[in-house]
Amino acid sequence: MQTSVVIMAGGKGERFWPKSRLNMPKQFLSLTGDGKTMLQLTAERALELADIDKIFIVTNRMYKDLVLSQLPDLPPDNVLCEPYARNTAPCAAFAASIAEKKIGESVMTVMPSDHLVKDTQRFTDIMKNAASAALPGVNIVTVGIVPEYPETGYGYINFEKDALFNGCHKVIRFVEKPDAASAEEYIRDGRYLWNSGIFVWKTSLILDKFRELMPDVYGRCVRIGEAYGSDAFDGILAREFEAMPSESIDYGIMEKTENILTIPADFGWNDVGSWLALEKVNKCDGHNNMIQGNCVGIDISNCTIVGSDRLIAAVGLRNVVIVDTDDALLICDKNHTQDVKKIVSELKKNNKKQYL
Amino acid sequence: MQTSVVIMAGGKGERFWPKSRLNMPKQFLSLTGDGKTMLQLTAERALELADIDKIFIVTNRMYKDLVLSQLPDLPPDNVLCEPYARNTAPCAAFAASIAEKKIGESVMTVMPSDHLVKDTQRFTDIMKNAASAALPGVNIVTVGIVPEYPETGYGYINFEKDALFNGCHKVIRFVEKPDAASAEEYIRDGRYLWNSGIFVWKTSLILDKFRELMPDVYGRCVRIGEAYGSDAFDGILAREFEAMPSESIDYGIMEKTENILTIPADFGWNDVGSWLALEKVNKCDGHNNMIQGNCVGIDISNCTIVGSDRLIAAVGLRNVVIVDTDDALLICDKNHTQDVKKIVSELKKNNKKQYL
Repeated sequence: MQTSVVIMAGGKGERFWPKSRLNMPKQFLSLTGDGKTMLQLTAERALELADIDKIFIVTNRMYKDLVLSQLPDLPPDNVLCEPYARNTAPCAAFAASIAEKKIGESVMTVMPSDHLVKDTQRFTDIMKNAASAALPGVNIVTVGIVPEYPETGYGYINFEKDALFNGCHKVIRFVEKPDAASAEEYIRDGRYLWNSGIFVWKTSLILDKFRELMPDVYGRCVRIGEAYGSDAFDGILAREFEAMPSESIDYGIMEKTENILTIPADFGWNDVGSWLALEKVNKCDGHNNMIQGNCVGIDISNCTIVGSDRLIAAVGLRNVVIVDTDDALLICDKNHTQDVKKIVSELKKNNKKQYL
Repeated sequence: MQTSVVIMAGGKGERFWPKSRLNMPKQFLSLTGDGKTMLQLTAERALELADIDKIFIVTNRMYKDLVLSQLPDLPPDNVLCEPYARNTAPCAAFAASIAEKKIGESVMTVMPSDHLVKDTQRFTDIMKNAASAALPGVNIVTVGIVPEYPETGYGYINFEKDALFNGCHKVIRFVEKPDAASAEEYIRDGRYLWNSGIFVWKTSLILDKFRELMPDVYGRCVRIGEAYGSDAFDGILAREFEAMPSESIDYGIMEKTENILTIPADFGWNDVGSWLALEKVNKCDGHNNMIQGNCVGIDISNCTIVGSDRLIAAVGLRNVVIVDTDDALLICDKNHTQDVKKIVSELKKNNKKQYL
């Protein structure tokens, strides 16, 4: 059975403003200091799981050229352009429909474009085990990250203790972002994993699930798939996509389905959810400062500084994130990194489009 | 008796980096949002005390053109250029010598170029009283600021309770920067003032004091004064100035002299000694933020932000100073504003001259 990979690259990455902008969102940025963008790193991991012509990037059409410039070996047709952002459920159904049309049935891995993985060999091994568990076409396999601490910002996956095969366990339930006490309980319990948003399924199985659980989305994606390759495609794609509900695959499919397995994963995962992630994925100095660019620090600790040529002088700071770009500068207390989105909202409200 | 004013404008203003630079120190900047530089504001106050041709600016020769561009009505000869920085004692002796040569004896007010005064009418009134007390040529009059709180960063002037005349009191002693307990004691006592570095004296008296207490400086300034107007002036000035000790007028003259009066002053004085001063001399919002430039703040308080066109987004910050310039950015905790000088030292050490 052939394998395919779908990389979801349509996000806006607003929590990474001011580096992440409307015309250059987070997944197209290099945040790790190795010069490779998150999309490029994700594509490298995907290439261990599928051939390049079976790797699909789903994104907004405004990013098609950006994707192809960052992944020059990718067949241009493999960039699947969403005319509207409708969250992960329509995205997955769309990708599965087009992939079936183009390459026929496959064991498909779906993953976000903006996560980081430290141990890529371990990632490959685990994902191959997940694919083998998905191959019979009976189970969807979701990747669960072995939790490192009681994070309250992630959803959790509760699983049965004994593995069924290839390290995969039956999922008992998906749990929404917990409060602190519940998160600690989950860690103690040991049968909870972080929900990574990485899935493996046989395309025939996931399309069956859509037909059963989201028949409207299914019907529209069938019509999109039928039009693929014809002159009518763009018009049908736009019309059908606009009409689809904005829904996550977790809520629309996973939480309503039996036959879901999870594979506990410990490959050094980071979802790079806010500027706080940078101190975990990059090298810090002896005072836990993560510093990029031209910087002079006097008595600073626990600071994350992302600069460039312009000199940044930081004095006496603790727990501060500083991100400097040509036209905009962010200075944010580390306890408020989720509020960076509020800056973006404020800029929209005040019609300061040049900074979006 | 004619009156003159000497404005000391040779400082480097390193604590106001990155706005204050070697080629544009603090006194040539506008920090009050009214578009006038500190030198221009100081000159406006001086014009209430003396005619423009009797106002002298002492500065480094590299700033002569800058002074004249900011004070276009000033006679160019009234910019007195120090070839070397030798602190306030040589500066005062030099200015008094040249002034006597150019305009003859005068009642001379000497003041720094980088202080701010809120109530200029009150300033004029007090300075005229000081001048009348200096007129007989018996006493030097020093301006003492009525302290607002127990500041430990200033020297204090201890004075006799009963005024002699025109609101002037006899000085008992000058006190170095005190510890916190002493500063509080001084405030309670009521007979202590902040030493402002503003003096009034008859030129004949101050030159007598130099002859008595700093005879080497006196002799050199006599030679400089004698050469004034001749072709030999520049050479003699350079030679004599280089040989003078670097000494403050407080230590060299004031602390060693009887016959010093002080006039308690309450004209809204601020020495603008660090970036902390800006929140006192400019308008703040309801959360005590002083914000200049293009800024979006989310949940910030007690912050001082000096920006320009470039967008500054501040999130969740407390007690932080942010100063943005074209090529350099300062972010400094308010408890560390004195350490801004350390940035300048660091830049010198690393030979990053473009930022000095």
